[in-house]
Parts: sequence; C-alpha cells; structure tokens
Amino acid sequence: MPQKDELVFLPLGGSGEIGMNFNAYGFGPRHDRRWIIVDCGVLFGREASTPGVDVIMPDIRYLTEQRGQVLGIIATHAHEDHIGAIALLWPMLKCPVYATPFTASLIEGKLEEEGLQGKVKVKRVAVGGNLVLGPFTLDFISITHSILEPNLLAIRTPLGVIAHTGDWKLDPDPLLGEVTDASAIQKLGDEGVLATVCDSTNALTPGHSGSEARVRDSLVDVIGTLKGRVAVTAFASNVARLDSVARAAKAHGRHIALVGRSMHKIVAAARETGYLKDFPATFDEVEAAELPPRKVLYLCTGSQGEPRAALARIASDNHPFVHLTKGDAVIFSSRIIPGNELPIFELQNKLAGLGVEVLTEQDHFVHVSGHPCRDELEQMYRWTRPAIAIPVHGELRHLTEHARLAKSLQVPHALVPANGQLWRLAPGEPDLIDEVPSGRIHRDGFVLVAEGEGLAKSRRALGHAGLIAITLVLDGKGRVAAEPAILMEGIPAPVHEAVRDAVEGMIATQKRGDSDGLAEAVRRAARRAAADSWGKKPVCRVSVIEI
Amino acid sequence: MPQKDELVFLPLGGSGEIGMNFNAYGFGPRHDRRWIIVDCGVLFGREASTPGVDVIMPDIRYLTEQRGQVLGIIATHAHEDHIGAIALLWPMLKCPVYATPFTASLIEGKLEEEGLQGKVKVKRVAVGGNLVLGPFTLDFISITHSILEPNLLAIRTPLGVIAHTGDWKLDPDPLLGEVTDASAIQKLGDEGVLATVCDSTNALTPGHSGSEARVRDSLVDVIGTLKGRVAVTAFASNVARLDSVARAAKAHGRHIALVGRSMHKIVAAARETGYLKDFPATFDEVEAAELPPRKVLYLCTGSQGEPRAALARIASDNHPFVHLTKGDAVIFSSRIIPGNELPIFELQNKLAGLGVEVLTEQDHFVHVSGHPCRDELEQMYRWTRPAIAIPVHGELRHLTEHARLAKSLQVPHALVPANGQLWRLAPGEPDLIDEVPSGRIHRDGFVLVAEGEGLAKSRRALGHAGLIAITLVLDGKGRVAAEPAILMEGIPAPVHEAVRDAVEGMIATQKRGDSDGLAEAVRRAARRAAADSWGKKPVCRVSVIEI
Repeated sequence: MPQKDELVFLPLGGSGEIGMNFNAYGFGPRHDRRWIIVDCGVLFGREASTPGVDVIMPDIRYLTEQRGQVLGIIATHAHEDHIGAIALLWPMLKCPVYATPFTASLIEGKLEEEGLQGKVKVKRVAVGGNLVLGPFTLDFISITHSILEPNLLAIRTPLGVIAHTGDWKLDPDPLLGEVTDASAIQKLGDEGVLATVCDSTNALTPGHSGSEARVRDSLVDVIGTLKGRVAVTAFASNVARLDSVARAAKAHGRHIALVGRSMHKIVAAARETGYLKDFPATFDEVEAAELPPRKVLYLCTGSQGEPRAALARIASDNHPFVHLTKGDAVIFSSRIIPGNELPIFELQNKLAGLGVEVLTEQDHFVHVSGHPCRDELEQMYRWTRPAIAIPVHGELRHLTEHARLAKSLQVPHALVPANGQLWRLAPGEPDLIDEVPSGRIHRDGFVLVAEGEGLAKSRRALGHAGLIAITLVLDGKGRVAAEPAILMEGIPAPVHEAVRDAVEGMIATQKRGDSDGLAEAVRRAARRAAADSWGKKPVCRVSVIEI
Repeated sequence: MPQKDELVFLPLGGSGEIGMNFNAYGFGPRHDRRWIIVDCGVLFGREASTPGVDVIMPDIRYLTEQRGQVLGIIATHAHEDHIGAIALLWPMLKCPVYATPFTASLIEGKLEEEGLQGKVKVKRVAVGGNLVLGPFTLDFISITHSILEPNLLAIRTPLGVIAHTGDWKLDPDPLLGEVTDASAIQKLGDEGVLATVCDSTNALTPGHSGSEARVRDSLVDVIGTLKGRVAVTAFASNVARLDSVARAAKAHGRHIALVGRSMHKIVAAARETGYLKDFPATFDEVEAAELPPRKVLYLCTGSQGEPRAALARIASDNHPFVHLTKGDAVIFSSRIIPGNELPIFELQNKLAGLGVEVLTEQDHFVHVSGHPCRDELEQMYRWTRPAIAIPVHGELRHLTEHARLAKSLQVPHALVPANGQLWRLAPGEPDLIDEVPSGRIHRDGFVLVAEGEGLAKSRRALGHAGLIAITLVLDGKGRVAAEPAILMEGIPAPVHEAVRDAVEGMIATQKRGDSDGLAEAVRRAARRAAADSWGKKPVCRVSVIEI
C-alpha cells in the first residue's frame, strides 16, 4: 500500500534562539519527501560561552543526507541571521537559492567572499513575485521590517497553505520599499491558512513597534540641536534608516560620509537594485575631515561595540581619518542586542572620555524595533486565522509566550517547536512525529566544527583554570631518564612550586617500569597540588617520550 | 618652613566602574597625611573579560605602603561593592573598621569566612551617630537605598566639610529603617559644604527612582492573580523587599520559605540588629514542599542568573526540595545588572521550558532602583550647594553626565575623577596634584593576582585559540634524540596534522647544535602552520629536555 502524502515542518535553527534561522518544509510520503528550506542564517559566537567562535550555524546533516530531495533555499530577507550561513552550508546542499533582488545581491556578495561565485545559482524572484518548486508554490508577499524587501511567504501545498512571516512589523510608512500588502495577507486568510509560522522576537513586548517615519522626524530634530561633528551608528542593513539619517543631515546642511565596509556594501547593493536614488552624494573620509565640524555627519558601522568596526576605532581615537572630540556627538540609532551591553558601554565610556556627547534610544527617540509587538501579532492572527500557530525566531521564553497569545486569540493549535523536531502539519491534527539529528556547527577560524565535539568548551576550561602540560622522558625499561618538562599556562606563580614539588615527589616514589601508571599518577598529583594551593583545577596533560 | 595642611581626595575604585568602591580622604601636610577609607568593595569578574576570576578589588598599594597613617575603614552600607573587599584587603591595612550595626554584622560574617574573626576590630556606630578619627569628624546621616542602614557621611575637617552620599535614593516610604534625614543634609548645606561626593549610577536616567511602598502594593496585586506556587527572586540584601514579599504572601494566605544561603544570612543579620520583628515565621524547604501550591511562596536567591544559586537549581529542576511546574510562577523582583542578560535569559528560558510563568520588571511593576535619578540628584545639589561636585560610583559615561548636570546646577567645580588621581580639595581651587599607583587585583581561586600581571588575559588567549605545547629531547650535542611530544589543546583536529608536519619538517632541517635556535624555529613553524590551516594563532610553547 503506498504511503500517504504528508506536509511536515522541521526547524533546525531559530526555535530556541534569536538567530540562526533555518526552517524546512517537507511534502510527500514518509520515505520520499521533497524539501524546501526557508532561510539559512547564522548566530554570532560569544566570548563567554563559545570563546574563539565567530559564527554558529545549524547542524543540517539530516537534510544533507538527502540533499537530492532538497529543491531550494528561499531567503525571506537579507539579515545575517537569515542568509549568513548560505555561503557556508551550500557546499553540503548544492541546491538553487531564491530571493528578491536586494537580498540576492547581498547573498551573491557573500558567495563571492567564499569563492563560490558562478557555482551557486541565485535566482532572483521579483518583488511580489512567485515560484514553483515541485509540490510547493510560493508567493512572495511584501511586508515591512528593518531592511529592504522583507517577504512573507505564502507556501501553497496540496495539503494546505502556510503563511511564513519571516521577520516583520507593521510599519504604515516604511519610507523605502513596499508597504505591507495587507490585502494579500487578508486574502490568504480568506482562502484558509493551515499554519502561520511567525516571528516571536517581541512577543513579550506590549503595544506596537512604531514607524520609521517618526524616527526620521525625530532624527531631524535631534541633529538640529547639535553643533559639532555628528556620527550616527546604525545597522548598515537598515537602508531606510541610512536614508533617514541622510535626509536629516541634509536638512541641516551637513554632508554625509560613510565609514565602515558594510555601509559601503549595503549602499552599493541598494543602489544596484534600484533604491536610494535620491541619496545624496557621499564624501569620502579624507574629504569629510576637511569640512567644518557642523557641516559633516558620519554614518558609521559598529553600533554593537564590535571591536574592529569603524566606531570602535573612532572611540579609541585610532581611526586614520575620523577624529571626534569635545563638542562632537555620537547617536546610537540602534538597539542593544542582548549580550552586547558591556562592549557597547565600553565604547560609550571611551567616547565620553574624548568629551563626545553620546545619544541613545534610552534618552532620545532615535530607533524603533523591526519586529512585531503584541498588537501587531494580534493583527497577523486576525488576518490569517490559521488552524495552527507556530512561533519561531525566539528563545523558549518568547515562543511559549507567543503560543499563549495565539491560544488566547482562539487559534486551535499553538506549537512550541524545538530545533530538530519534525512536525506533521497535515493531514490530521498536528503531531510531533520524529526528532532528527540537530545541533550547532561552529565556524572556528576557517574550520567548521560540530558543537558536540566540545572544542569551544575545552577552550572555555582553559580560560577558566589554564593548563599544566608535563612531559616525562623514560628509558627502555620505563625508568625516568631526565628531568620532566613542566609547562604551566594561565596559572598563578605561587602555585607553580607546589605543582613542581608534587610532580617530583611522585616521580621519586615511582615503581619501576609502570610507565602508564606513572603518567597517570603524575597527572593526578599535579592536579591535586594545583587544587590544594589554588582552589581551581587546571586541565592537566602528561606526555611520555621513550628513548 | 613647615608644609601646609591639605585636604585631599583619592578614589582607588568606583571611578570608572559601578562596583569596587574605594575612596580615601587625606588630611595633613604632603609628607604626613592621615587617611580614612570610605568603603572597600568588590567588582564581580566576567567570563568574557576575566575568565576564572570571581571577584576584583582595587590595588591599594599606595595606602598599604603608609598603613600606619590609615585611621580606619568606614563602610557607608553593606552592599558587596562597598564592603566585599574588607576581609580580603584588611591584612594589608590592619586598621579598625567602622559601620552601623546591620552593616557591621554582615562585615563580621565575611571576616569569619576568611578566618579573621577576633583579629579585626569592627566598631559599631549607632544609626545617626558620629565618630572622630584624627582630624576627621564623621556624622552618619540616615538616607534611603535598597538596603538597611545606608548612610550619608558628613566628613568634617579643619579645611571644610565633605558630603559623601554613599549609595542613595530619596524614598519617602522605605518601609524599613529610617527615612532620609533631609533636615540634617539641609543643615549641612547651610553650614557650607566644600564637596559633595555622590552616586552616579542613574545619572543618565531622568525622573525619580520611585518608592519601595509602591512596589509593595503592586506585589500584593500581582501575587493575588497567581494560582500555583510562587517563587520571588530578589537581592537578599534588599531587606525591605523581602519584607514586602512576605506581607504580599501573607495577604494571600501564602507561607514563606527562604531558599538560598544569602537569604538566611541576611534575614538573620536583620533580626540580630533589631529589624524584621513582624516577619512571619518561615517554613523550611521540606515543609514548604508539603503545602498546597497556592499556600506557598519561595523567596529565592539567584536573580542575576548565578549558576549555583537557588533559582538556577530550581530552573534546572535539580533542587532537592523545590520543584516548580506548569501553573507555577516566578517573579523577578530585581533589575538585570548589565552583563548578566544572557545568563538571566537562559534561566528564564529554562523556567519557560518547565511551563512556569515568568514575571519581570519588563511586564509588571515589581522593582524600583535604589539609586538616584536626575530629579533626586538635583535635590541633593539643592540641599548641599557644594563648591565642588565629585561624581563617583559610575562608568565614565555616568561620571561625565553627572558632572554636566552639576555644572548646569551652578556648582562652581565638577570633577570627573579617575581611580588613582589624587585631588587637592583645599586650600585653594580643586587641583589634580598627583597620580598614584592604582589598578585592579583579581581573586583567582585562593590567590590574589594583580591584573597587570596578565594572568586572566593569558587565559583569555587560551580560550580564544588554544595552545600548542611541544617538548624536544636533545642529546649533549644539541641533536634531536627522540620524537618530540606535541600537545594540542583546544585546536580542531584538521589542524593537528599540519602542525605535526611543520614541526617534523623543521626538525629535519636542523643545523647541528643550535638548540635555542631550534626551539624558536619549531615554535614559529608550529604557529605558522596553525595560522595557515586554521586562521587563528594559538599560544605556542616549546620546552627542551637535555639528556
């Protein structure tokens, strides 16, 4: 008897973290599903939890093992947490990539950085366009967010329609790009939506996220009060914000200079795809330095305190061309991404030390969120009226609260998915039918390493208590033939002597010939001596060289 | 000609960070100053910047070198960032300690933990009392803060009066302990204040910090809406908050159980010194587990996500007696200390995973700050009307903004002091007359280590890129006599072979006899091979054993 077709949902990233978004939809009988992937993003590593790891991606082995069945990767929009892993994971998938023009342009730039230009088919879908991939028909419905060309995907299958929101908000006046195509979303609801798969970032925040147009008005006012040089830092990808800042600058006779690589990259991608036609001519950093202070406005990268970005170099006063001083001001037209507080405050302290005034969203209206607050989520459920709410793009606290909200709006089913859970959405009631291998991949230097291998964790242990490396030289009879080499790294000097004494003491009591036993006894003695004299247990390794 | 008497101010901690408060006042001729120390606190280490360091203290060598001249340590109040370093630094100072009874009780507990009970004289000053120490006469003036017995110190000297605020706010209804003695502070202003040395924590925050009494009312309302078990986490030292929670519990027929060591310690200290006389009898954790869910309220430590505290164990469902589940709720009656966002969110995610509802100050009125916002700072300057404003207890961004505020209030001088700066306050205009040795001391395990020694920094490097330790065995003629031992720790497996090949290649080309040159060449080859194959440069050490 042939198996029945099923429609399944599989998150491999983003359900449990804000970042690393990766959702797959499968259609077909259990042993012959065809898949589409919606978004393929990164999460940024943290020095405290994953030292030395710059980006983190989902472990997608479940799909790579059946990559002949993967019809394509569709990007909803161009944020790093949605497209940042495409160039890194594509070699395991080798499928086409689909996106609207601005998003496609930025994906192509990333593929080029990884040496994959020409190898990957990035197919441009028109804004408001559509796409057929096997059993899936996708409509790209314009919505608003803090970037150009965000899309809600209407994913039609023979077993029902999915409204996959991507990242969104309801901005009546986004300033650049399309407004939300509310009638298309409403029409989708009228047709009948099986599942709404929806952004949970602000599910804990009451009210409405606010409009970009009001930020623009406020930036004009705020910049009007400033007399010296002004630097504004914002996410480069927020092209409407860059345009708002440029207009506010122009309103006060200031010339714009872009500072930082991403600023140039994004402005170029926006122009290439038909946006920013009225953006003023920009000055380069050298020209801008010649302008009178009240005639210049720098648009800088580095709002998150990134140590190598433009603003960090300016704050440390070691930028080659941009120098700020008493009477100048820096506006953080951005939010603090949780976890970045201390580096951002450090940056602001350095600016304060230069005598520069710092303006942030804490004290001035210079930023709005790009994600839906609770009133907007309610509107989305009123429009789509799904049988199933699937909160994604959030930590567990966001997903559970989002699910609670959906239930309160009479959505019959609200799932709280976890990465690796395979949910059947149709036919029948939604059901968790499998748990597939999932996890995280670290990009550690050039190398991709599964989190489960414990490499970052082992370095974290070195960071906590350092390392003792002991090398014993033994002769053919297993007798100690030389003074051991004892390396102690990251361990306070007063502990060194205790460890040396313990190692020498253990060697002196050695029973002849038992080299494995000696190595282990030495290891234990060294570790115990460190623990007793220091209160901490370093990593301890013993090597044996036989001569 | 004898030198003139001077009154000087020397911050060694707290001017540049919120934490590690340590201010010294000196009086006398330049070469014969006598000193008092106001507060002696810690800062907590951070895994990202100071891995493996639990607490950080000021480097006070400048004062320990003249410890015969130090008349005493005065604690304004009992928070860790004001008293936490007393027991650790006292052996270098060996001077008496002065505090009001509740503060003294907690200091004594800490001295006992360090084995110093009986050795240190902790002298109790009555609430509202005073103290004469050489040329300094100190009045303890009651003020309000988020702890019992906070004091503003009026420090009288022959060259002028200093109003040292300590940590404070203006709470008209602090619920426990004294209200602010506004008339005493005003009288001080009428006498003439030379310098107001003042808390800057909330100098960026407009308005007023709010009253504890309103939090109590709101807690009664919030707890009234909850049906299952309730756990409230708050700073244990906020005794008024503990009392508020206990009253809110009582209002709804819930019994209190204290969970976590600090809760017991603080409640005991408060009772010993005459507070909490009406605090209800507490249940122990075992008894409380027997109560119906709606009859119990747990007061827990761990609001900052501390991994070993009660709430972390409850959230991981491995507390021996306290188990929360669907239908239960946790109230975070606390703020997030910057830098603790990720551990706190992790904790909240775990609670959400248990089905527990999480209530925080983001969504409910369950907390007020203990520090003065801008309206309160203005009031303090109206009362004291000093010649000099000295913002302390803040990062540079807080100190500079506080100084700007003071100038706007027509304070003639506003200093932005840095740790180690020695300011003459009188006679004459305030002047920076010296920079003395300063810095930070890490408590690293049991051992105190100067930050400048770079131990935590070297471990941070290990955390970033791991370590290669190579041991070469050479004979009497400097020839390689055995296979080298190569240890690689925290380095991805694909890099290992490249490093081994590079080391072996370098050994093969060895020029006879140059053992130092060989070790250095091997070190460079290994590091280069790692950099080429990994993109990161591990720490690389080569040891040589001669046989």
